[in-house]
Amino acid sequence: MVQLCGNLTITGVVSGKGKGKQMELKDIKKVLILGAGTMGQQIGFVCAMHGYHVTFYDLSDEILSHSIKRIEKLGSSFFVPAQRITIAQLKEIMGRITVTSNPEEAARDADLISESVPEDPEIKAKVFAQFHELCPERTLFTTNTSLLMPSKFAAATGRPEKLIALHFHDVRTTNVVDVMPHPGTDPAVVEVVHDFAVSIGQIAIMLHRENNGYVFNAMLSSICTAALTLVTTGVASVEDVDRAWMGVMRMPIGPFGMMDQMGLKTVWHVNDYWARNTQDIPADQMQVNADFLKQYVDRGELGAMTKKGFYAYPNPEYTKAEFLSGKVKK
Amino acid sequence: MVQLCGNLTITGVVSGKGKGKQMELKDIKKVLILGAGTMGQQIGFVCAMHGYHVTFYDLSDEILSHSIKRIEKLGSSFFVPAQRITIAQLKEIMGRITVTSNPEEAARDADLISESVPEDPEIKAKVFAQFHELCPERTLFTTNTSLLMPSKFAAATGRPEKLIALHFHDVRTTNVVDVMPHPGTDPAVVEVVHDFAVSIGQIAIMLHRENNGYVFNAMLSSICTAALTLVTTGVASVEDVDRAWMGVMRMPIGPFGMMDQMGLKTVWHVNDYWARNTQDIPADQMQVNADFLKQYVDRGELGAMTKKGFYAYPNPEYTKAEFLSGKVKK
Repeated sequence: MVQLCGNLTITGVVSGKGKGKQMELKDIKKVLILGAGTMGQQIGFVCAMHGYHVTFYDLSDEILSHSIKRIEKLGSSFFVPAQRITIAQLKEIMGRITVTSNPEEAARDADLISESVPEDPEIKAKVFAQFHELCPERTLFTTNTSLLMPSKFAAATGRPEKLIALHFHDVRTTNVVDVMPHPGTDPAVVEVVHDFAVSIGQIAIMLHRENNGYVFNAMLSSICTAALTLVTTGVASVEDVDRAWMGVMRMPIGPFGMMDQMGLKTVWHVNDYWARNTQDIPADQMQVNADFLKQYVDRGELGAMTKKGFYAYPNPEYTKAEFLSGKVKK
Repeated sequence: MVQLCGNLTITGVVSGKGKGKQMELKDIKKVLILGAGTMGQQIGFVCAMHGYHVTFYDLSDEILSHSIKRIEKLGSSFFVPAQRITIAQLKEIMGRITVTSNPEEAARDADLISESVPEDPEIKAKVFAQFHELCPERTLFTTNTSLLMPSKFAAATGRPEKLIALHFHDVRTTNVVDVMPHPGTDPAVVEVVHDFAVSIGQIAIMLHRENNGYVFNAMLSSICTAALTLVTTGVASVEDVDRAWMGVMRMPIGPFGMMDQMGLKTVWHVNDYWARNTQDIPADQMQVNADFLKQYVDRGELGAMTKKGFYAYPNPEYTKAEFLSGKVKK
């Protein structure tokens, strides 16, 4: 298998950068959620569902009393009806959750932070810097940012080597998370956060460098861009674009239906942000991609037809039950 | 619904360009397939399956005797086991199919041509020009080209107003076809070819201007480009890219698995061709797309959440049985 993603070596060897004892997965007991909005609620619930003690921190008790109701509702209206937990388990889960608007109390004994505060690098930097002062030295800092690169605020957090993105999608519909270090993240931190993600039932997608939109959202964004471009350049109607997708992919929804589900304000915000902030894709990236494919062609590895391509056939790895869990070679 | 696709008015009104009686769907009895390769075989079979008389033309009797075996095999090894036709129906279908390497015989009484000769504009122009001389004046010319714009060889065919792309995907896995006129196509021809596509059981996607990759392939290409770029720029591994797609989309295959199925030589060829031939997307297309979304946001049409977005909720058109058939407003 071609291995193009080798710029980070993830070995689990204790890094020279770490001070004192290196954090291991078994040391993570308490998760601190910074920002008790929709995403924070979902992430905290999933952590508590998998046995972690979870504290939610937000600016006021009013916000938190509203949030705790919504967290319980996420359990009772979604996870219980979906038969992913029982009512008895929901009670246990809620018993592992506490809320506080006192930062000192929130920081006490926190082993891992998951941050979902507003998408502003200055706010993120300020909140992390505050908790850097309050948290134990061992505490790992993860950010759930959708749009920002961790390197933008890494230095300002006070512990850049312990900062990494751990990015969730909607936990009701998928268990895919992106694990994305910035250039200064300690490789040992990458490993423990990857293992933490797996320990809360997630499919951990490893990024070897920072990337706008991580992995899935980068692809989703490219589909939405292609679909929007077909319509805005007058090629086809919204309905025909969805019809083409649904008819070939045999999916019950097309790109415009998906955008409606995501919410057009969010989709607009992301498109507008990226229109103004995305670095240009190198003009010759298509040729780079073509040349990458050419290596397979030159080796006669033409895909399923020749029994070898990106995968080996007739039983490619992606048809195996353990593929999604990531136990198959990354 | 915003209607951005109005550059062609498809009215069915007899166009001034047409000479003599305008072709109508009911006048189409005999389909001539030019080029009896894999795609030609599939298209011809589907036409015969829906009651049309089909003649295959290719350069030699040797090619044709090989093709007719493969056409029968497409029926017996795919359509019969898939329970889409019975063995008795297969016999009837094969009874409607003839082959000839004699162009005069092939052209006689042809009402509609479907061309699948090699992807070279000069070859296509030459073959069409030859059949322009031999065919009745009424014969409609459709091309199944994947990569070329019909306008590239329209004039050379001798009857540009009757030339249109009617582009099939793999008929074993989908019934989506693209109907793509060039600027000189008679609107009445657009309509009759659209109706012909529906008459052979296809979901007809209407393009209102020429576009590289039509509709579905343009989106598929954007996913493949995004997936390839994630790997070739060292962001993530082939397996993790597929895992992210499969995990969120809940599909049994990811982009690299799909490329293996398409065949990497084809994928490479298309990527390489487009790397060299695609016009640059205007740098501000992302902003055009964002501004298009902003119109919905400004109207408070934020998608499913507000009961209105691209579709109206709670019962959006795409959930209706007739959506795919195109009976819902295009």
